Amino acid sequence: QCNLTGWWKNDLGSKMQVFKVDNKGNFSGMYHTAVSSAQKPIQPSPLQGSQHLDDDEQCTFGFTVNWQRFSDSTAVFVGQCFVDDKEQEVLQTAWLLREKVDHLDSDWKATR
Amino acid sequence: QCNLTGWWKNDLGSKMQVFKVDNKGNFSGMYHTAVSSAQKPIQPSPLQGSQHLDDDEQCTFGFTVNWQRFSDSTAVFVGQCFVDDKEQEVLQTAWLLREKVDHLDSDWKATR
Amino acid sequence: QCNLTGWWKNDLGSKMQVFKVDNKGNFSGMYHTAVSSAQKPIQPSPLQGSQHLDDDEQCTFGFTVNWQRFSDSTAVFVGQCFVDDKEQEVLQTAWLLREKVDHLDSDWKATR
Amino acid sequence: QCNLTGWWKNDLGSKMQVFKVDNKGNFSGMYHTAVSSAQKPIQPSPLQGSQHLDDDEQCTFGFTVNWQRFSDSTAVFVGQCFVDDKEQEVLQTAWLLREKVDHLDSDWKATR
Repeated sequence: QCNLTGWWKNDLGSKMQVFKVDNKGNFSGMYHTAVSSAQKPIQPSPLQGSQHLDDDEQCTFGFTVNWQRFSDSTAVFVGQCFVDDKEQEVLQTAWLLREKVDHLDSDWKATR
Repeated sequence: QCNLTGWWKNDLGSKMQVFKVDNKGNFSGMYHTAVSSAQKPIQPSPLQGSQHLDDDEQCTFGFTVNWQRFSDSTAVFVGQCFVDDKEQEVLQTAWLLREKVDHLDSDWKATR
Repeated sequence: QCNLTGWWKNDLGSKMQVFKVDNKGNFSGMYHTAVSSAQKPIQPSPLQGSQHLDDDEQCTFGFTVNWQRFSDSTAVFVGQCFVDDKEQEVLQTAWLLREKVDHLDSDWKATR
Repeated sequence: QCNLTGWWKNDLGSKMQVFKVDNKGNFSGMYHTAVSSAQKPIQPSPLQGSQHLDDDEQCTFGFTVNWQRFSDSTAVFVGQCFVDDKEQEVLQTAWLLREKVDHLDSDWKATR
């Protein structure tokens, strides 16, 4: 069964630790980003998420990273587990980063 | 101070209830979607998320909705609170929906 | 038959003029944006695109706006024509804005 | 100077040929996709686009692919040229695919 618990590393060098996944699929963890568009120094940041508990190794999942320790932004990631040709577990994800803007007029450019 | 606790409704007619936001900004809730690309009947679905606890009314936030009660998909939403011209609180959000695919080769089309 | 030729205005106040659509569905035009993340003053900017030539009023289309007159960014829009409840033609679009970055390391944040 | 003219191949095995780029940065070409969500057999499909004509090798660009030969969808790509560690030209792109939907009510799910 698919389980996100543990450490994961992405192509940009960011790492995340997912703590124990509960019996509903909910989890928390810490995200150690290697990249940032903020001005303050990067800090490990808490994440909250949820995964499916399918019997195969290919569950979908999502999580939120709250960058409040060094930024007023929030990121969300959504993806799916796979087992690749080399029998390695890989996570394929897409993300959105929301930056805080001063006014509704600037909302159009707040998400990347 | 910004607080997501309560009921919210979007332009498509979907509704969500955010339960108590804790002192770290974490929250859970239920999402009642009005639209679906799944074949089974829609069910209210649990959400897990996190918000900033800024002193203004314009915090950013994110959450994950796990559609496991009727689908193998997961959605994430990210956004920001605003107070509009009519003194109403509004949430501006963007989202990604991950559908489960059978194989890594189909990963390119799994997110919308 | 669906035809993009003419003037269109969006919710942000941006306007575009699509010149004659040719018999393959290709067109050019000018985009007059109301919003910008660039520092120089906004200039009307050329667009190049293509649409389907379906017999209904619901063709899909896409176009590129080259902001070279005041920015080193490029935007793409993709969407579909509809006729709404009031018999008005409306275009539903999504877009991506690519900003120029100095190095591949910054590629992750270049698109919004 | 950056110039997209020529053949390019992506990680999924899709190939594109960009014909002569004119002195405004406009170009046309053909896209040979390796992947498809359509039911009919894949056909090479025409593209229309535009690039910046910067003096460095890092111009941004965008183009539209009209899949009308086998689908009622349209795709847009936006990106930037780079020269990588091995002195190879690489294109970093993001894309959106618009599928035709029957009604405005389904617009929310038409773009991936």
